[in-house]
Amino acid sequence: MNLTLRDPQWESRVRTSFAAQNFMTHLGAVMTHLAPGEVDLELSLRPELTQQHGFFHAGATSSIADSAAGYAALSLYPAGFGVLTSEFKINLLNPARQPRLVAKGRVIKPGRMLTICQSDVYGIDGTDQVHVAAGLFTLVALEGMKD
Amino acid sequence: MNLTLRDPQWESRVRTSFAAQNFMTHLGAVMTHLAPGEVDLELSLRPELTQQHGFFHAGATSSIADSAAGYAALSLYPAGFGVLTSEFKINLLNPARQPRLVAKGRVIKPGRMLTICQSDVYGIDGTDQVHVAAGLFTLVALEGMKD
Amino acid sequence: MNLTLRDPQWESRVRTSFAAQNFMTHLGAVMTHLAPGEVDLELSLRPELTQQHGFFHAGATSSIADSAAGYAALSLYPAGFGVLTSEFKINLLNPARQPRLVAKGRVIKPGRMLTICQSDVYGIDGTDQVHVAAGLFTLVALEGMKD
Amino acid sequence: MNLTLRDPQWESRVRTSFAAQNFMTHLGAVMTHLAPGEVDLELSLRPELTQQHGFFHAGATSSIADSAAGYAALSLYPAGFGVLTSEFKINLLNPARQPRLVAKGRVIKPGRMLTICQSDVYGIDGTDQVHVAAGLFTLVALEGMKD
Repeated sequence: MNLTLRDPQWESRVRTSFAAQNFMTHLGAVMTHLAPGEVDLELSLRPELTQQHGFFHAGATSSIADSAAGYAALSLYPAGFGVLTSEFKINLLNPARQPRLVAKGRVIKPGRMLTICQSDVYGIDGTDQVHVAAGLFTLVALEGMKD
Repeated sequence: MNLTLRDPQWESRVRTSFAAQNFMTHLGAVMTHLAPGEVDLELSLRPELTQQHGFFHAGATSSIADSAAGYAALSLYPAGFGVLTSEFKINLLNPARQPRLVAKGRVIKPGRMLTICQSDVYGIDGTDQVHVAAGLFTLVALEGMKD
Repeated sequence: MNLTLRDPQWESRVRTSFAAQNFMTHLGAVMTHLAPGEVDLELSLRPELTQQHGFFHAGATSSIADSAAGYAALSLYPAGFGVLTSEFKINLLNPARQPRLVAKGRVIKPGRMLTICQSDVYGIDGTDQVHVAAGLFTLVALEGMKD
Repeated sequence: MNLTLRDPQWESRVRTSFAAQNFMTHLGAVMTHLAPGEVDLELSLRPELTQQHGFFHAGATSSIADSAAGYAALSLYPAGFGVLTSEFKINLLNPARQPRLVAKGRVIKPGRMLTICQSDVYGIDGTDQVHVAAGLFTLVALEGMKD
């Protein structure tokens, strides 16, 4: 797999774009890891992120999995291309009721037009780690869309 | 397809559970339609729901699609069973940049244990309606989980 | 949705390409409907298509759903573009043990590069029809690939 | 993750059930690895498995990915339970035009009712190996269904 960087400004571009995702701010997501083709995002359990049983809502879990995948893809784009999610699938493996979630987005197939990522979400409670979700994402590179 | 109701209190149960989803409140989602096996949820475009280009974040779109599917399923459950999302897949068909989104969750296969729903999301701008997303969801019925 | 035809030879092109899919011949699939953005494929239950319980194997069901989606997409492509499946998701809704399966591939979002299709499979037994599978497919248009 | 075996006859049960999948015989699939929660299936490129460009048909690739996932799940079932695929999603990452495909089904979340598997397919040409497909599968355990 070829994870060649195609934009010398990749790091600042990813961080700037992530900071502009108001939805991630609204959820309280924080970027804790950034490398070529790799992004981790974290979320702390707060009441406003829960569903009716007090767990993280599947939508919150999926949202950080999606942004982690999207920025893992963007890290490899040439300058002048923006990223959009085309589709994704996610399996919720275990109840997400840990104090902290970390979504690990990883490029598994870079491409000029389509980039495929895997995104796994783990619930973390002290030293315990539970595999909360596994997802596959297709990201599109759009020329001329600022990112 | 058999959409028989199995709980006389189905309607209040769905509404009460939806009201308890803090995440839906945090997003500003409103239930605008409820019938056996059918739920519509709506969301208005606000800055805190957007990604870096100012569109609804795929996570916000997916979140209401997920809750719409989940409550469509719950409407058909017997008393004493709770609903959890097992997995879903969503295709983002068009940019979600309309003032309003409506997610239409519909049961396509009810079951004792697994219920399969389709959830389509439309972006609405006056009289224009754009098909923004199409998804398939698997919901699990869990005995003894309050909902 | 814009289902404009972009190749006057679309019909013969789809039929010729389908005839060249040896795998469809190996399964015994027959094209029973072709219209712009629409393809139906049928399969008769034969021992070599079954899994261990004597039902159609999920792989056989998925295979005709995939080809139906792919040719529904190809019907709208300009000349000189070939079709490849990028990804798909399918829910097996009911056991496929009817004498005949029909997969209905329908374009739900045409595009220059990506076309999104829905493909539903029905099991047919006389006048009974069972919804056996529901799927979502992403097809890619590749310039310069003969089809 | 708990990969405890629950049937002392697990190995013969998996091999017997696989041998009864006529569809796998029809494709020419061979089981080359079996361990608790792990199954590999292989397929050699033959004309009858191809699509119109001479590659393995996405349906053939998906079919062995599905059976590999299903038998990885079955290996962990108690006696008296059969396996059915509930749903799956697969991304076709690279053209499958190598002489040989191997699908590696792996349980990522065992469960009493639902088992989630990952299935990755590799195209093998001598010492070269290409990641051809990545999929996520949900398998259901059905009591009283012989397997």
